[in-house]
Amino acid sequence: MPQTYRLDKNAIHCRWNRDLPPALTIDPGDTVIFETPEITRGQITRESTSEALKTLEFALIHQISGPVAIRGAEPGDTLVVEILDVKPKAWGYTFVLPGFNLLTDDPAFQEPFLMTWDLSEGTKAEFKPGIVVPLQPFCGVMGVAPGEPGEHNTVPPRRVGGNIDIRQLVAGSTLWLPIEAPGALFSCGDVHGNQGDGEVCGTGIEMESLVTLRFDLRKGENLPELRFQMSGRMTDAWNSAGWYCTTAHGPDLWQNTQQAIRYMIDWLKREHGLTDHEAFALCSVACDLKISEVVDAPNWIVTAAMPLGVFVG
Amino acid sequence: MPQTYRLDKNAIHCRWNRDLPPALTIDPGDTVIFETPEITRGQITRESTSEALKTLEFALIHQISGPVAIRGAEPGDTLVVEILDVKPKAWGYTFVLPGFNLLTDDPAFQEPFLMTWDLSEGTKAEFKPGIVVPLQPFCGVMGVAPGEPGEHNTVPPRRVGGNIDIRQLVAGSTLWLPIEAPGALFSCGDVHGNQGDGEVCGTGIEMESLVTLRFDLRKGENLPELRFQMSGRMTDAWNSAGWYCTTAHGPDLWQNTQQAIRYMIDWLKREHGLTDHEAFALCSVACDLKISEVVDAPNWIVTAAMPLGVFVG
Repeated sequence: MPQTYRLDKNAIHCRWNRDLPPALTIDPGDTVIFETPEITRGQITRESTSEALKTLEFALIHQISGPVAIRGAEPGDTLVVEILDVKPKAWGYTFVLPGFNLLTDDPAFQEPFLMTWDLSEGTKAEFKPGIVVPLQPFCGVMGVAPGEPGEHNTVPPRRVGGNIDIRQLVAGSTLWLPIEAPGALFSCGDVHGNQGDGEVCGTGIEMESLVTLRFDLRKGENLPELRFQMSGRMTDAWNSAGWYCTTAHGPDLWQNTQQAIRYMIDWLKREHGLTDHEAFALCSVACDLKISEVVDAPNWIVTAAMPLGVFVG
Repeated sequence: MPQTYRLDKNAIHCRWNRDLPPALTIDPGDTVIFETPEITRGQITRESTSEALKTLEFALIHQISGPVAIRGAEPGDTLVVEILDVKPKAWGYTFVLPGFNLLTDDPAFQEPFLMTWDLSEGTKAEFKPGIVVPLQPFCGVMGVAPGEPGEHNTVPPRRVGGNIDIRQLVAGSTLWLPIEAPGALFSCGDVHGNQGDGEVCGTGIEMESLVTLRFDLRKGENLPELRFQMSGRMTDAWNSAGWYCTTAHGPDLWQNTQQAIRYMIDWLKREHGLTDHEAFALCSVACDLKISEVVDAPNWIVTAAMPLGVFVG
């Protein structure tokens, strides 16, 4: 008989480590409701200003919920994670931290920036008057312990997941993770109320959340890297009003991505009166990033696509 | 009074060159119906087999329609291209040419592969029994002459457009091109009945077409690189049945893109019984490519997303 467990917000850790004791052990088929914490361990509150970023202890990021051990899970198996529900809390924040974003060398982004969001309406949130972002909450971090012993930083994504920031992993999607450590040792957190592809300014709408996931095992599948399935439309909530798109061409997809975002920032400043930081933040919480062209050497194209549905004023 | 012109399929050229005589000269506000040719100058016909690729004269690619001069267009102006209609013809083809695709070094793709499509139904086309792709036709090539004198190959995309392969540029979208040469000298062609992001196997559904575009000018805007606006949903035609997604992580977006496509090919072979070449071709005509993660050094994530709506069997 499948069980439902609740993991409270004290069951947290801050590094991946296959030798951490499980906060909970479950059977395949069981469901867990995670009270996921805010990622900085309370260094940012609803009353914080940009000043808080100047003393931010980055080593405390990410605070995540878990680990959950799954009985019978062995290296080579696949952990099936059904995303049943991700509930936004009452408020969130977005920051631009110099040195941790897509445009670290740009003069416009050498100062810290912090904004907070009122999320109490539950389905959408005002960025500033005239600009509204729908809420499409998902876990920025979902993953299992790497097989290699020792502590592993939570920032870079890995084949076993972690800080993957795949904004399509909303309720209704299913994630498949390759297992490297006995018991799998799943953790999650860093929930974003919304985020654009790539989370370009370094943060989405960061918030606490209540996350409900159901787990299962597929034995001996030897999945090479995580994959997932979405049900329904890719970007349903803001898909109907059209998109404004900038493009950047060149031989390096990374530099093209930077340049396409710079063009989008320019447009948001000129057409919608945003500041550099506001524009970067809106890209990070709302903008799609597509690889449009990748075979016609020497130039590839990256497209940044802003859903026009966010402009309601 | 705005005019409508028709440019027949003999008005073609094969290189960008600011000194080509215009096939047509129009005023801002005018509309042109282009009879766009197949890109290889007839080297591939409906009866061709993979053998035709072994002697393909690549230097004849791309055959494109134009150039069209716009009165009053000067360097620094923006050419506004409204995409009014793109009509598919009765058949098309997709090929994998060794050395010209995203996976040029992979052992599976060292032999040429050619398939043809029956497009006569007009709204969708059968890939093979059980797999149907909706038609969302757009011009793979739209651009104006580069400012630098001389001949320029049509293969790489440039800031003034060209072989941009942006699959969202369907009817209803508007493209803005920076102008570098007096008169702008616009050309188009390489129409794809459908294509996935990145056209990964090197071709979409290649076909002749009837393309209707309306032109306008914005003076002295100094647009740094082409951009565009889409009306309506990004991927409406096949968005409702869900998506199967592979991901690849690592420090190089280009290698991640290759790897995500390799994973998708593996899945299409195992789950849907496709051959390597069929799977590569289906990715090239149907698969989305998203940059999911680009700030959490040292690893970025590229996601390849296959719309499940194509599997009808």
